Amino acid sequence: MTETAVPPSERTRVRRVAENASYDSATLYAIVDDAYLCHIAFSDDKGSHCIPTACWREGDHLYIHGSNGSRMLKRLTESEVCVTITHLDGLVMARSAFNHSMNYRSAMIYGSFEKVLDEAAKRSTMEAFMEKLAAGRQAQVRPGNDKEYNATTVMRIALAEAACKVRSGPAVDDAEDMDWPVWAGVLPFARARLAPQTDAACSLPAPDYVLGWQDGSGKAA
Amino acid sequence: MTETAVPPSERTRVRRVAENASYDSATLYAIVDDAYLCHIAFSDDKGSHCIPTACWREGDHLYIHGSNGSRMLKRLTESEVCVTITHLDGLVMARSAFNHSMNYRSAMIYGSFEKVLDEAAKRSTMEAFMEKLAAGRQAQVRPGNDKEYNATTVMRIALAEAACKVRSGPAVDDAEDMDWPVWAGVLPFARARLAPQTDAACSLPAPDYVLGWQDGSGKAA
Repeated sequence: MTETAVPPSERTRVRRVAENASYDSATLYAIVDDAYLCHIAFSDDKGSHCIPTACWREGDHLYIHGSNGSRMLKRLTESEVCVTITHLDGLVMARSAFNHSMNYRSAMIYGSFEKVLDEAAKRSTMEAFMEKLAAGRQAQVRPGNDKEYNATTVMRIALAEAACKVRSGPAVDDAEDMDWPVWAGVLPFARARLAPQTDAACSLPAPDYVLGWQDGSGKAA
Repeated sequence: MTETAVPPSERTRVRRVAENASYDSATLYAIVDDAYLCHIAFSDDKGSHCIPTACWREGDHLYIHGSNGSRMLKRLTESEVCVTITHLDGLVMARSAFNHSMNYRSAMIYGSFEKVLDEAAKRSTMEAFMEKLAAGRQAQVRPGNDKEYNATTVMRIALAEAACKVRSGPAVDDAEDMDWPVWAGVLPFARARLAPQTDAACSLPAPDYVLGWQDGSGKAA
């Protein structure tokens, strides 16, 4: 993981609560790697659209995929986009109503998507996606065939013009509110992994990434 | 909660995997009510932007708020937007690589934001937001004063031109893959509530919505 700090562009310079902004790759990569979904903003003749889609990272690019027939994927090659990932970490309970806040980690990436045209690169990054979902599973499933790969578009956007914004820690109250008689603190959220649900038609033993799903040991490194 | 089914517009008609689409208010309201954050897509002369922000619902509108100085809030009154909320519910492990999927609930809302100009309505919906975060807390905190309300813009968008897309349930494999020797099922996610973190400077007893945070009983109805 590189730790280059990329200077903000005119689009990515955070102006509001600028002390929460970050432009280093390590923060960006960690936010992307913790996500299964991103939201993509793009425009066409019908207006602005905000589409959720699965994503993963390889090196300094964020990848998405979809059917060749997808309207969104067609549009994405035609315009500049903004890809945003947000993790909500908690509700911040301050002593005054207007100092309430949320703890979160967000990343915004500006740029253009390009199709992954090289067939080997396309297959290898789809396998990296599977590896992120469940380490070791790619070798177990019925692999994609030529027809399936040919019907699928893989696209990527450089993690170059990007900004992160992170809030963590306790409530920040004004000095004159500190004695107000109300509980203050943080009510934290996390993404929980519930018990795996084995398919009704499946009588096979669960592999390691299923057995370890709930305690996190089944997660790809 | 009304259960009106609004016919899809040209923008909201779901074309891809259309059997997962829904246009009824009950589904829409449930997805919005389960969210603390939305992503808003809008465009200006620098391109498309995708901004995460806190949101809540009152009646048939989605509300957001921010500082009067926010660039985003200024832009939102100048263009049509798309507001999207997505909940990730699980990873769907199929027998073939290309039938893997995700379980999710998403809502896309198109339209324009309008400022809430009526002062009583503005204050009352900000209190509704607090009620959503922590039932009963509004009466305990140091309430907003005129200066704080005057520095804050509250905006809303009608939940009228909207579409939901929901995938749930098991993997769907092709008949010829059903005997492939791999575990199949769903690896579910949920939003977990971790132990409340009392502020270091707070020695007051925790109210009900803090005591009940982890078991869900502290959540507003």
